[in-house]
Formats: sequence, structure tokens, C-alpha cells
Amino acid sequence: MLAEVVAVGTELLLGDVVDTNSAWIGRTLALAGVDVHHHSRVGDNVGRIADVLRLALGRADAVVVCGGLGPTPDDVTREALAEVMGVGLVRDAEVLERIRALFARQDRAMSPSNERQADVPTGARAIEQRRGTAPGLICPVGDQVVYAVPGVPHEMTEMVDRAVVPDLQARMGGRAAIVSRVLHTWGLAESSLADRLAPRLEALDGAGNPTIAFLAGGTAGVKVRITAKAGTAGEAEAILDAEEVAVRSLLGRCVFAVGGTTMESVVGGLLQARQLRLGVAESMTGGMIASRCTEVPGSSSWFRGGIVSYASEVKFDVLGVPQGPVVCSEAATAMALGARRILGADVGLSVTGVAGPEEQDGRPVGTVFVGLALGPEDADAGARCLRLAGDRASIRQMAAVWALDHLRLELQPPPI
Amino acid sequence: MLAEVVAVGTELLLGDVVDTNSAWIGRTLALAGVDVHHHSRVGDNVGRIADVLRLALGRADAVVVCGGLGPTPDDVTREALAEVMGVGLVRDAEVLERIRALFARQDRAMSPSNERQADVPTGARAIEQRRGTAPGLICPVGDQVVYAVPGVPHEMTEMVDRAVVPDLQARMGGRAAIVSRVLHTWGLAESSLADRLAPRLEALDGAGNPTIAFLAGGTAGVKVRITAKAGTAGEAEAILDAEEVAVRSLLGRCVFAVGGTTMESVVGGLLQARQLRLGVAESMTGGMIASRCTEVPGSSSWFRGGIVSYASEVKFDVLGVPQGPVVCSEAATAMALGARRILGADVGLSVTGVAGPEEQDGRPVGTVFVGLALGPEDADAGARCLRLAGDRASIRQMAAVWALDHLRLELQPPPI
Repeated sequence: MLAEVVAVGTELLLGDVVDTNSAWIGRTLALAGVDVHHHSRVGDNVGRIADVLRLALGRADAVVVCGGLGPTPDDVTREALAEVMGVGLVRDAEVLERIRALFARQDRAMSPSNERQADVPTGARAIEQRRGTAPGLICPVGDQVVYAVPGVPHEMTEMVDRAVVPDLQARMGGRAAIVSRVLHTWGLAESSLADRLAPRLEALDGAGNPTIAFLAGGTAGVKVRITAKAGTAGEAEAILDAEEVAVRSLLGRCVFAVGGTTMESVVGGLLQARQLRLGVAESMTGGMIASRCTEVPGSSSWFRGGIVSYASEVKFDVLGVPQGPVVCSEAATAMALGARRILGADVGLSVTGVAGPEEQDGRPVGTVFVGLALGPEDADAGARCLRLAGDRASIRQMAAVWALDHLRLELQPPPI
Repeated sequence: MLAEVVAVGTELLLGDVVDTNSAWIGRTLALAGVDVHHHSRVGDNVGRIADVLRLALGRADAVVVCGGLGPTPDDVTREALAEVMGVGLVRDAEVLERIRALFARQDRAMSPSNERQADVPTGARAIEQRRGTAPGLICPVGDQVVYAVPGVPHEMTEMVDRAVVPDLQARMGGRAAIVSRVLHTWGLAESSLADRLAPRLEALDGAGNPTIAFLAGGTAGVKVRITAKAGTAGEAEAILDAEEVAVRSLLGRCVFAVGGTTMESVVGGLLQARQLRLGVAESMTGGMIASRCTEVPGSSSWFRGGIVSYASEVKFDVLGVPQGPVVCSEAATAMALGARRILGADVGLSVTGVAGPEEQDGRPVGTVFVGLALGPEDADAGARCLRLAGDRASIRQMAAVWALDHLRLELQPPPI
């Protein structure tokens, strides 16, 4: 079974709204064992929506179209569906009654324009609306089918789970499960990851199940996605479990997490497990590490605070960095110790470096020192030097993640 | 000029990654005066990418395709472009040299698979890569054009702004001058802006030149775009000049900038003009104001540093906030004064509040206090209370911009 996803709405084309619906529908269809080769987005225009639907039906067995089912004149998905089916629209009494009842329950007056939402192409079947006023539609087109669902995310998800997926699965006459797992990595380029995984990639090349793909993610690191197909979700998960072990044995410690998480959440979890509280001192990253840490809900249990020592005098006067060059190992170490002391933290982490555009202290753009005070003794504190490439913005962002990753590796003892 | 956006990546179809790139490109093209009727997403498959590109070229003058330019075998956008152009790929020595130099600067070994990224379809022109290893491509197809840019967002945005939009505008310039100007606003909802601009919108409704559009921009504020058409760019600019005066007279001080700039750049300019240096104290925003300020090149001349006082003890012990509730006007004022004193700044700005998910100090989620120490006397310092809606992440982001806007308005005396 091959399906396509079509999202309708001029606001999506203009970028006023990010199309999260298609991603959700794509994931849901994949989990249901339905292949998807194309997603399309089109504006609120009857002719163009109809053309996109015809195109999709020329490539796939089924189409899920979301959006354009509202009450205002720019909501024209119903009309486009009728055009594609070559039929007219009839007002469905049962659907209309549900819309009326919804307004009555909320003590709101129903606008005449809401009656349009009860229009159904002849030969189509309405999917009962339970969360909003817009019903869904199941529209047969020959032996193919178009499902229309509302664009409001919580209305759409409920309707796809309840009505669209079961109908698709009934048409498939059986079930198959496609399940993915994403390993987050840091510190290796996509090409190096591919080189390390070469033995697995070669072994899997013929079989095609599971598959391994790489997703470049900038400051989120490169992700390695393993996808497995099987008769049931449980069997697919078992394939993923085995493949994850094989992949991890080749990639080692550069894998910092599984699934949808962030470096700062992982670091927070490691600190919390050890009951350690973090304080940071930031120069070139200017507060990025602190703002990442405080984005994590519950970070108050492990994050004390930070000092953004952008001016050198703040490094000397507030953090106690010795007068002299501020882009060097000694300054980074003193910053980490200063942050730990002043903020009453157990662990001090610091970044100083040259984000550009100009070099500083005779150091080229991209030079970064990460300081860490982790052990109980001040003498245990130290710093690490990195060389990063890119422009000012990306050097800053990468430096923040490298610093967090440095702390992660120190907190996460290597396997024996 | 009609363009289409194509996003490449199986991860987008599977919903592992939400396609934010297309939304950003759509918004950017709209701002440049380019119409977009379709967005498409397709997986990592040469034949299907080529088909989608041909389809897009059948409907539009230009196509922007993002993703699939990486070094791994599943990155096949280059091959698809060559197929559409009916040409082969040649390895570009200059591009290859930049990739080598990038690895060398980072003291990293270059993998042989990275050499593929220097492959360019014959007749296409490479767009220099500045943030990653993947160059962009400008591919002429008859008198149409396909632009290929990387899928990593910070690489893509920089390249679209630097190379794609100017090339598109040069192509449009041959036909007619369509010029846009964007006024950045803060503090009013889109509907309120529309109400204020109603007299101009009505006056322009018949003429159709210039036009006014609103672009919701989240933490960048609502943008008001004025677009003018004329025989020459100079004539179009003159129309924009006149309309900008009319629009500003209706919108007043909520307009904080014109063109592609940010709130923090505007604040930096105002501080620099008065030779004032800023120090910040942040609680709920956790370093976001500091990181925004330090993102501005040259900010070291007006930004001293910041203190992220996430734990209450840091507020008391470091900033000298009186013991007691920390989400209140008194705490915000004391934080601003503390930041100014400790960081050796002339101006102190602070934010304390409740980002959620839980209420704090009996204050509901969304309560924000912005403290400001601007005048020479400590007694002049004060605070302002805001109530923001949204989830944790958006409350934090909005609070950072509201704080900067508060400082902007205090630094920018109202016109007499």
C-alpha cells in the first residue's frame, strides 16, 4: 500500500505556520505499514488542490489530505474533492446536527457559514467529528481513496487514529509494522560515522531490513536512524534491539542518546543521578549553555546558574581569572573554578574562545577552550582546546554543544 | 515570478524530522516578492527526486530544493539534478579545496566520501559553502533555474539569504522592479496592527500598488511588508518611501526596525550611540538575553556580561536580592541593580518570572517582571510586570524580547 500526504493552507506556503501535521501523519502511516513517497503542500485554491490530489492519485493508492475543511470561504477542500470525484456536494443532515449540537453545548450561536461544513461529496462517507466542527471524509475514487481530515492538529490526530488508519489497514487486508529508532551522536562527521558503520551497512545492503540512514542535524548532532519492518510492532522492535547493539558496538561513546532528546537533557540526567549541581561561565557562547540547560524542564534541581563574562574585566573582577590573555587553557580553568565558587555549584564548566570575525590574543577564529572543574579539588580542574570551523553564529553554537559533550563524557565513565 | 520548494529526505516522509526548512524558505521567498503555489517533499531516491523537480519546473519558473547534498550514499540530489539537466557530474576543484581546507582547519581527517560533495552537474554553478561541507548549486534548466541548498537549517538559511534570493531578484529585475520593505514591530497582535492600518489598507485596496501584508514571526515580532511595483527599482523605492511614512504615522513606536535586523541589534545601536554598556541578570530566560546580545557582531563595545541567577540563592548571594519572593517587582529591580554593579555596567536589565510548567511564589505561569536600572541613581531603577501566554519555551523566548523592547523604548525618546 502506497499513500501520499497533502497539506492544504496558504499559511503553510508562506511559512506562517510550520506543517507539523504531515510529519505526524507520515510517522503514523509508517507505523501502520503504509509506504509514503511524497508529501505535498498547496494553498487554498480549488483548482490547485484538485490538481495535486489527481497527481497524488496517479502515484499512490491512497491520499490523506489535511486542512481546508473549516467554515470560511477560503476552506475549499470539500469542493476540490467533489471535482476530483466528478460529483456534486450534498448537505449531510447527520453531520449538520452534530455541528448544531456542538454549538449548543458551548452556548454559542452557530454561524450560517458553519453549515458548509456539513457538505459531503456524493458517494463519500463522513467521519464523525468529535473534537471540532469539521467532519472528516472518506472519498472513494475508483478503487483508490482520499481521506480528508481537519488541519487543527488535535482534531486531525484523533480522526486519523480512529478512522483513517483502521480503514487503510482493512483495505490492506493485513498488517505490517515499520518502526524506527534514532541514535543521537556527537563529535563525528556524517562521513566518519558511515565509515565506522561500513561493516553493518554492507551486511544489510542486500537484505534491506533493517535499514540505516544518517540525518545531519547541525547543533543537534548527526542522527543514525535504524528502521525495521515486520509482521508486528513487537517483531520489528526486536530487530531494532539487535541492530542497535551492533551499531553501538561500532560507534562507541559518540552515541549520547536514543530517541527525541537533547545533549543538555542527557547532561542534566547524569548530574542529577550523581546529585551534582552545575554552574557555568561563558565568554564566546554568551549564555547559550545556560539557556540550553534552563530549557530542560526540572533543570532547577541540577542547574545553579551562569556568569556571562563577555568583557575581559568581568573575567578578572568577577570570576577571578588572572590578568593576561583570556583565550587560553589557564583562563578557561580559572573561569570554571570561578563559576563553581561564586554560584555555589559542585561542577564548573566554562567556554572561552574566538567566535570571530576577528582573531583575539593571537589565536585564530574558531579556537575554543572548554574548562571543567569536576573533582573535589581545585587542582583537578583543567581545560581542553578545540578548533571549530564556520561563521560566528555556528562556531558559538557548536562550542556550546562541545562543552556540554565534554562534561557528558567526563560524567559517563567508559564501559570496561 | 513563481517558485516551488522541494524538501528532500526520507526522514521527512517518515516524520522523524519536521520540515521547518520549507516554511522558512516559503517565508523568505514571500518577503522577496516571489509567489509560491506548491511545496513538495520526497525521499532519498534519484528517480523520484528528478520526477518531482520536473513536475515543479512544469508549474513554476524556479525551484529551491533543500537536502540530499551530504556525503553519504543516500544523498542523491546532485545526481537527480544532473538527470533533470541531462548532463553528467564533474568534480569541482575549487569546491573540493574548500572542503579539504575546512577539515584541515578543524584538524580532522577528511573522509573519501566527502569528495562526492564537490560533484557539480555540468553547466551548474556552485554556491560557496561557509558553514558546512556541502556547497549549494545554481542549475539552469533552459530559462528556468533550480537552486539546491543543504538540509542543515543554519547552512541552508545562510546560503538562501546570501546567494539564492539575490539571484532570484536579479532574474526578476530583468522583467519588472518589485521591491519590498519590511517593518519589524513588537508588542501588537496582527489583528491590532491591521485595525490601526485600516485607513491605509482601504485606500490601497483598489489600486493594488503598493500592497501591505502581515507576516506573523513569533519571537521576531509581526512584520509588515510593503511591496511596490514600478518600471525601475528607483521608482519602486520612492513608492515605498512614501508608504513607509504613512504606515509609521499609524503604527507609531511599535515599529522597531526596518529590514533584516533584530531587536538586540537595535538595542545595541541605541546603547552604543549613548556610550552605555549593558549588564543583564536573568532567571526564567536563563541566558537568552545575553546570548542574543552577544550574537550581534561588535557587541563587546556595549555588552559587559550577564548573570544567570537560576537558583534563588544565586539571586540572594551574588546579586544581592533581598531574601523573600523572587517573582516580584522588588526582586526584578534588585537584580537589575545587582547586574549593573557586579558587571561594572552603566545599564542593568533583568528578567524574573514563571515560565512553567508549575506556578511559583503564588504567581501564575506567564507572570514576568522586567527590571531596569538606566538612570545614574539607584533610586531611579524600577520594574514592569507582563503576563505572557504559551508554553514554557515560548514564554521564555517572548520574555527575552519583551525585556529588550522595554529597554529600547526607554532609550528611544518618543517623537515630540
